[in-house]
Amino acid sequence: MPLHKHLGVKLLDARPGYAELLIPFKPELVGDPRSNRLHGGITATMLDSSGGAAAMTTLTTPDDKISTLDIRIDYLEPGKSADLIAYGEIVRSGQHVVVCRMWARHKGEDAIVAEGKAVYRVTRFGEQNA
Amino acid sequence: MPLHKHLGVKLLDARPGYAELLIPFKPELVGDPRSNRLHGGITATMLDSSGGAAAMTTLTTPDDKISTLDIRIDYLEPGKSADLIAYGEIVRSGQHVVVCRMWARHKGEDAIVAEGKAVYRVTRFGEQNA
Amino acid sequence: MPLHKHLGVKLLDARPGYAELLIPFKPELVGDPRSNRLHGGITATMLDSSGGAAAMTTLTTPDDKISTLDIRIDYLEPGKSADLIAYGEIVRSGQHVVVCRMWARHKGEDAIVAEGKAVYRVTRFGEQNA
Amino acid sequence: MPLHKHLGVKLLDARPGYAELLIPFKPELVGDPRSNRLHGGITATMLDSSGGAAAMTTLTTPDDKISTLDIRIDYLEPGKSADLIAYGEIVRSGQHVVVCRMWARHKGEDAIVAEGKAVYRVTRFGEQNA
Repeated sequence: MPLHKHLGVKLLDARPGYAELLIPFKPELVGDPRSNRLHGGITATMLDSSGGAAAMTTLTTPDDKISTLDIRIDYLEPGKSADLIAYGEIVRSGQHVVVCRMWARHKGEDAIVAEGKAVYRVTRFGEQNA
Repeated sequence: MPLHKHLGVKLLDARPGYAELLIPFKPELVGDPRSNRLHGGITATMLDSSGGAAAMTTLTTPDDKISTLDIRIDYLEPGKSADLIAYGEIVRSGQHVVVCRMWARHKGEDAIVAEGKAVYRVTRFGEQNA
Repeated sequence: MPLHKHLGVKLLDARPGYAELLIPFKPELVGDPRSNRLHGGITATMLDSSGGAAAMTTLTTPDDKISTLDIRIDYLEPGKSADLIAYGEIVRSGQHVVVCRMWARHKGEDAIVAEGKAVYRVTRFGEQNA
Repeated sequence: MPLHKHLGVKLLDARPGYAELLIPFKPELVGDPRSNRLHGGITATMLDSSGGAAAMTTLTTPDDKISTLDIRIDYLEPGKSADLIAYGEIVRSGQHVVVCRMWARHKGEDAIVAEGKAVYRVTRFGEQNA
């Protein structure tokens, strides 16, 4: 993914139904310069990508495709100027639709900065896109 | 905002209760290289920022602060390799909480690529942050 | 639907991709007796049902089934002790998934009391449930 | 609450930041009679009420008020013709806004039928409603 490469996102772990991604902090990812916090859109990107990576573990052919139908995010703690790890796990897995739960923490910290849910549309090989 | 500067985001319009932002397309914003579409996280960032910009039009002092409590996004059409405009408008405006509706279109096109809602926590001057 | 019958819900209109339902006010539907407002869960029920009724207009056989995958609701105005009309319309229509936008107003009033989105899983005849 | 009384909803537990409610199954709460499942709107009502009950544990005077700003629900398993227990717990607690996580299970079962999040606006005594 070009965006992941551009942002330096790394896949830390991926097992059936689960994935973990890290984004290294950089000053250009800050939202409000007064607070020096990570922009919420970066956190959203990481949550979407970690849920998507978890959903991708159900794919079986290189032609299978996945796209986000909807995502919902709660921001629970202010972000910091620090690396962020996002976790995604499948909570409902179907032939055409996969639902994931995602959450994010700063590296080495316990507090959940943001958490959310997303619904992914899976188009498996041979199925018509819809 | 450092992230906006980094991504080249431009404020096209801001009036009481309304804001419009544009992000110029760049190849590094692509999610899946097979489809060459804008990454959904970039669209999420733009929706969050356009709602936040609309909410900011209610601020009255430079010390007032705004932060996103929650955001929900529906992706309605696949993104393209093209500039994206995000629109935000306030649907509920309170002393402590502002709710916005946001939507995004590719420049020059009618189709809504994504739409959503967000709740912003507004901390007005003199109020304790909570 | 037994619940609709129990609550006295009436279908006011249904056209391809659109539906309108009314619930007559009754004192037992009130949430907080101090404010005498309709309970938010009743509004949620009406929004879910109006989106579902809109989605059902895409069904083609009596064996097709529909179920709600997720729903998100914003409460914009306090409910009143008055009849409520809920409107649903399809914003994305696929073979397996239909997304609707819904909103509700008290009968004879302009103000939107609540609005939301829902994603419905459609299982069309001959398809395996998943 | 008149609606709770009408539906027979019982408060099973309430501790600071947490609440548990039960709704006894009745045939008139069914959505689709073919599947005999609880209507999703009843589940939504229970989730909203359990989160609201958890948020209410932060109130300190009888004049404090609470109202739902937004709710988001994922339906993970088909409902059954059985009693449902809904659980709510606070995940972010502020002076003006409380965020809760809620989930529901059929009595005596492990599977989560539905889960969600809600944001509540709290108007504490002496504060102007907004």
